[in-house]
Amino acid sequence: GYGRTGVIYYENDTGVNESQVISRLRMNIDAATSTDQGVDFGARFRIQWDQNSDDSGQLNAGKLWVTSNGLTVEIGNTETAMDSSGLIYATELGSYDRSVGFSGVVGDFFAYDADPYGNSANDTSNRLGVFAKYEIAGATVMGSMIDPDQANDLPAGIDKEYSLAVDYTWNDVLELSAAYTQNGAGFEDNDIFFVGARYAVMPNARVGLNYIDTNDEDDSEYGAVGQTFALYGDYTLADGMTNIEAYVANNNRDSNETDNAFGIGVNYDLGGARLGASLQRDYSENVTADMGVRFEF
Amino acid sequence: GYGRTGVIYYENDTGVNESQVISRLRMNIDAATSTDQGVDFGARFRIQWDQNSDDSGQLNAGKLWVTSNGLTVEIGNTETAMDSSGLIYATELGSYDRSVGFSGVVGDFFAYDADPYGNSANDTSNRLGVFAKYEIAGATVMGSMIDPDQANDLPAGIDKEYSLAVDYTWNDVLELSAAYTQNGAGFEDNDIFFVGARYAVMPNARVGLNYIDTNDEDDSEYGAVGQTFALYGDYTLADGMTNIEAYVANNNRDSNETDNAFGIGVNYDLGGARLGASLQRDYSENVTADMGVRFEF
Amino acid sequence: GYGRTGVIYYENDTGVNESQVISRLRMNIDAATSTDQGVDFGARFRIQWDQNSDDSGQLNAGKLWVTSNGLTVEIGNTETAMDSSGLIYATELGSYDRSVGFSGVVGDFFAYDADPYGNSANDTSNRLGVFAKYEIAGATVMGSMIDPDQANDLPAGIDKEYSLAVDYTWNDVLELSAAYTQNGAGFEDNDIFFVGARYAVMPNARVGLNYIDTNDEDDSEYGAVGQTFALYGDYTLADGMTNIEAYVANNNRDSNETDNAFGIGVNYDLGGARLGASLQRDYSENVTADMGVRFEF
Repeated sequence: GYGRTGVIYYENDTGVNESQVISRLRMNIDAATSTDQGVDFGARFRIQWDQNSDDSGQLNAGKLWVTSNGLTVEIGNTETAMDSSGLIYATELGSYDRSVGFSGVVGDFFAYDADPYGNSANDTSNRLGVFAKYEIAGATVMGSMIDPDQANDLPAGIDKEYSLAVDYTWNDVLELSAAYTQNGAGFEDNDIFFVGARYAVMPNARVGLNYIDTNDEDDSEYGAVGQTFALYGDYTLADGMTNIEAYVANNNRDSNETDNAFGIGVNYDLGGARLGASLQRDYSENVTADMGVRFEF
Repeated sequence: GYGRTGVIYYENDTGVNESQVISRLRMNIDAATSTDQGVDFGARFRIQWDQNSDDSGQLNAGKLWVTSNGLTVEIGNTETAMDSSGLIYATELGSYDRSVGFSGVVGDFFAYDADPYGNSANDTSNRLGVFAKYEIAGATVMGSMIDPDQANDLPAGIDKEYSLAVDYTWNDVLELSAAYTQNGAGFEDNDIFFVGARYAVMPNARVGLNYIDTNDEDDSEYGAVGQTFALYGDYTLADGMTNIEAYVANNNRDSNETDNAFGIGVNYDLGGARLGASLQRDYSENVTADMGVRFEF
Repeated sequence: GYGRTGVIYYENDTGVNESQVISRLRMNIDAATSTDQGVDFGARFRIQWDQNSDDSGQLNAGKLWVTSNGLTVEIGNTETAMDSSGLIYATELGSYDRSVGFSGVVGDFFAYDADPYGNSANDTSNRLGVFAKYEIAGATVMGSMIDPDQANDLPAGIDKEYSLAVDYTWNDVLELSAAYTQNGAGFEDNDIFFVGARYAVMPNARVGLNYIDTNDEDDSEYGAVGQTFALYGDYTLADGMTNIEAYVANNNRDSNETDNAFGIGVNYDLGGARLGASLQRDYSENVTADMGVRFEF
């Protein structure tokens, strides 16, 4: 797991304080065993506390997995293919790994749930997830299915989510990612397509391009947010510990104040922990900034 | 703890899907210490998630224990004598350890509570459990008392549960079990008597007979289910890893469609995990089947 | 963490049973990491179950901390300066560490919260704590700030709590403690002042004097309880394992049946666990006694 804390600033935030201390504490409780045949079985609970959101650490639903010969299958509160895509979160900046210009507009799809299942039509305690991942050479192929309620008929407008993703890395230099989700987050017709590429132009510098296609924002019943492009890159200074990163992104919603968002960030590696900061402007022309520390354990 | 997952089928299940993926993830959080005098003190929390029942892993109430010279005493959310009886669950089949013909009709009594205490008259947060176990030679003697509410007067019809059990093993060949519970699950007059025996007719084959006596089903306020006999056995194939098991059971309730239930199951030991399946028919003449994997850690 | 169990007796307790089995099970879940520069980062969750109060173990909000060169800073669900004061709880007796004459009348201030944050005006999920501690030679200086709600305007009568404390130990013989809290527990004007001293008159005998000043009890909106003195001491027998301890205390509230409270206790060290008992009389002239065991792990 990890801990992170620091300050996040939102311009024109509706709350009283535009700057707040925001912390997260995440601990994974993992258990595993190996059979005589070399098959690994395991399971995970997660305890997560998000400052301002949670009044205490939250336990989530369990995940069970089995791995053998490069194939992993998960049951329960599983990962999903799109959320595990190699580049979909590559534009994120700073110690908080935030990207209002791209990660903020990828639409609505299921992911491993760090909180208890909810009580909405697409998030019941009867939710069933199945996820499979196969790794070979530099390629990873993933597929997932989330049934919002395996015990009852699904209500109108709710359907099973299917997701497929492929990642490929060539020679540690070129990364390619593609993912497709049908009925994202269980909303019928909420289909999402993602493709991304990143290239290491120098050993310490990378440039990437991401594209994501969600439905038009008129499909507001499931929070569709149009199409978005992002150009991004990062550069590591000669000290080997300071990493500068940035993105510019373009989204085509009619409701945008501006169609362009951008951000710049920096991370300083302490070895076991990192200090980070970012400055970004979103599609409402509001500026947001953060500064903090994140440590892994 | 352990994880298990697979598919359970119920004929004529009232739900939409007769077959569902059912998983459980159980992790015990144990802590212990030893004094200079050789007395061991310890404690346990459990986190358990049951698919379809729980929206997240559930923490339960704590158990504290002390052990010395073969005597163990527990305080808090304790085990109970009847639930710890050596043979009461010996008819169970497959990776899910289910037995609709016998474990399904043992009546209502307290056990170690894997979930939070409830809000009913016999399950308050003021519940107090005391359990003692003494092991000597091949014999185990256990006694338990559960007070549903130590802080207030108990309501009418609710009383403390007392339970006593004795297990005896002779020469690794013969197992004998007997248990008696008064006011099972805190319901006054809900008295339950159990006796069982199992004999190893060959090193790889065992045969057993169980009998349990609960009140007549007219005492529906505490779910009494009459008397039940079960004949059961298991046989390990020459590979040493495949175990075949079966039972036939007879229950005398007037409301039964049939007084006979039976089941057959198989387990295949992977070393650290096991695959299992079972096929059973219950007293409503409905067939249920399951197939899955269970791994310990 | 630790476990403890035993029996507590309250004279004239409003409940049905004056004597009850009271147990607590506390487990800390700690994680930490060290950077290349020798800075330590860490975090804690706690799971705690209090018999009769909790229907299951409770997870609390997270604490994140960083330590370097004697300076520790905590963020989130932090310690507070007054609650960490070296002598404020020094009058406590027995295995339950109870002191109705002094710890029972220290007033209302924030502490590390072992339970989830509540839903009252001074205990929201937006609570923010910051705590700093600096240790040098025999001195410890601590300061803390708790903002009951960093996201919204605080309601009338609610304000941030500030707390400052200093501990000093001289030659392992003399301990001095002082602490001051402003707006204790977030209640405006609920200011509390504490000072204490303890002196080892012999290697196995100590005598101490504590004084705490809270507002007059007329300020009932935040539970002020006047001024209290306590004289206390403890003596270890020649076996090195039996510790006798006692206190007498004087509180000046008009509503007291008596202004004097006192208690005597004993602890027997088992090495890893301890047996303890105490007998006390409070300001209502009620007697309370306890006997139990406590073990650390």
